[in-house]
Amino acid sequence: MSKPLILVSNDDGITSKGIRVLVEAMQIIGEVVVVAPDSPQSGMGHAITIGDTLKLEKSVIFEDVEAFECSGTPADCVKIAKHYVLKDRTPDLVVSGINHGSNTSISVLYSGTMSAAIEAALEGLPAIGFSLCDYASDADFSHAVPYIIKLAKQTLQRGLPKGIALNVNFPPIQNEEIKGIKVCKQANAKWQEEFDERHDPYGRRYFWMAGNFVNFDKGTDNDQWAVNNNYISVVPCQYDLTSKSAMEIISKEWEW
Amino acid sequence: MSKPLILVSNDDGITSKGIRVLVEAMQIIGEVVVVAPDSPQSGMGHAITIGDTLKLEKSVIFEDVEAFECSGTPADCVKIAKHYVLKDRTPDLVVSGINHGSNTSISVLYSGTMSAAIEAALEGLPAIGFSLCDYASDADFSHAVPYIIKLAKQTLQRGLPKGIALNVNFPPIQNEEIKGIKVCKQANAKWQEEFDERHDPYGRRYFWMAGNFVNFDKGTDNDQWAVNNNYISVVPCQYDLTSKSAMEIISKEWEW
Repeated sequence: MSKPLILVSNDDGITSKGIRVLVEAMQIIGEVVVVAPDSPQSGMGHAITIGDTLKLEKSVIFEDVEAFECSGTPADCVKIAKHYVLKDRTPDLVVSGINHGSNTSISVLYSGTMSAAIEAALEGLPAIGFSLCDYASDADFSHAVPYIIKLAKQTLQRGLPKGIALNVNFPPIQNEEIKGIKVCKQANAKWQEEFDERHDPYGRRYFWMAGNFVNFDKGTDNDQWAVNNNYISVVPCQYDLTSKSAMEIISKEWEW
Repeated sequence: MSKPLILVSNDDGITSKGIRVLVEAMQIIGEVVVVAPDSPQSGMGHAITIGDTLKLEKSVIFEDVEAFECSGTPADCVKIAKHYVLKDRTPDLVVSGINHGSNTSISVLYSGTMSAAIEAALEGLPAIGFSLCDYASDADFSHAVPYIIKLAKQTLQRGLPKGIALNVNFPPIQNEEIKGIKVCKQANAKWQEEFDERHDPYGRRYFWMAGNFVNFDKGTDNDQWAVNNNYISVVPCQYDLTSKSAMEIISKEWEW
C-alpha cells in the first residue's frame, strides 16, 4: 500500500521549530510535501493575496522532503499547494502548525494556523491545525508528538465529517503529565485590546496593539478550560458561519 | 432622545465610494464615527496587526463626520475604534461596507468587510456588513440605500442575537426591481483557484492567483441563490466555529 500523502503548512513560517517537529512526525506515517510561508504570518486570519503577486521557491530546509516557501499567507499556501504544487495529487491529510502559541477560543478567527486547516477543509480535505500554548521560538513540543501522530493516523483512517477541520491545542509542557484529550467547544472568550500610544523620532504618533485575554466561559466543556487543566483540546471547526437559530429569530420577528 | 452612535468601517479603504454612501445613509439616522483602513484591504479576512505598529490619523474626507484612517486591517480598525477612539462611548451599531463586490457564501471567510462586522459582534455590538455584487469603483449603490437604512433601523430597535453579525449582499443594479429580502444561509460554494505563472524582467517566477467561483449549492435557501435571483441576502453569521454535530460524531466514534 502506498504511503498517505500529507501536506504540511503553518503560519510561523517555514524556518520555525514547530513546523520542523510536525514534518518529522508526519514523515513517520506518510509522504510529506511542505508549502509554508517564507516569513511569519501570525494573526493573518483567513487573509489571501488578491491584487498582488505571489512567489513560490523550492526549499531545501528539510531533508528528503519536497518543500516550498511561499510569499503569501497560510491560506494562500494551501491554495497554491492544492492547485499548483500538487495539482493531480490529492493529499490524504493536511496538517498545519505546530503553532508557537495558543489558538484556543476566539483566537481561531485570527489564527493563520487554523486558516490553513480551514482552507483545506473547504477544499474537501481532512485537516488539522496543531498549536502549543507556548510562544517561545524554542518551545518544547516533545509531549505533543505522540498525540499528533495518533490524531493524524485516526484522521487518515476515519476521515472527518464534511467541511470540518480540527483545532488541536496542547498545554505547555509542565511537570505533571497530560491528562488526556477533550473533544470540546470553542470557549467564549475574547482579547481585550489596549493601544499603547508612542511617538517615533519624528514626533509622529503610532500604536502597539496589546491584548489581554478575557475568558467569560465558566464551563468545563471548552478548549480554554481543557488546556488550563492540562488536557489537549480538540475542537471540530466549521467554515459555514450561518447561525440557524439567529436565522429563525430574525426571519420570524423582524419586518421584511 | 440622543441620536444613536454608529461606527462605520470597511475594507476597500476610506476613500472608496461604498463607504461614502454608507456614511451618508447612517448620518440620516445617527451620529457617525468612521474608522477605516487608509488603503484597500480586500481579502484580508480576519487578519490583525501583531508584531507591527499601527498608525491612526484624523481624516477630513467626510463633511461633519468624526473620521480616522488607520494603517491596519478592518479588524484592527474596529479594535482601535472601540478601545481607543471611542473609549467610553459604546456604539449602538457598527456597520461595514458598502463593499465593492460580493461577499456571499465562502467569501465571508476572506472578507475584510465581514471581519469588521464579526469583530464588532464579538465585542458584543450589533453589527452588519453590507456588500454590493459589483466590483466597479464607481458602482451604483443607489438601490441599496433604502434597504440599508431599514436594516440599520431595525437592528437599532430590536438588537441582534448575542454574537451575531449580519452579512447583507445586494444584487447589482439591473433593469428589474429588487424582489425583496431573503434571510438565508451561506451557500455551499468555493473559489476554484488557478495560478497564472509569469516571469518578471529578471527571469524570476511569480504568480497571480485567479479564482473561479464554483457553486455546489442547488438549493434556494442560500445567499448565492438570493442575489442571483435579484433578492437581497441576509445571513446571520456567528464567530463560534464549533460544529456540535462533528463534536458528537468524533467524541463517540473515535478512540480517545
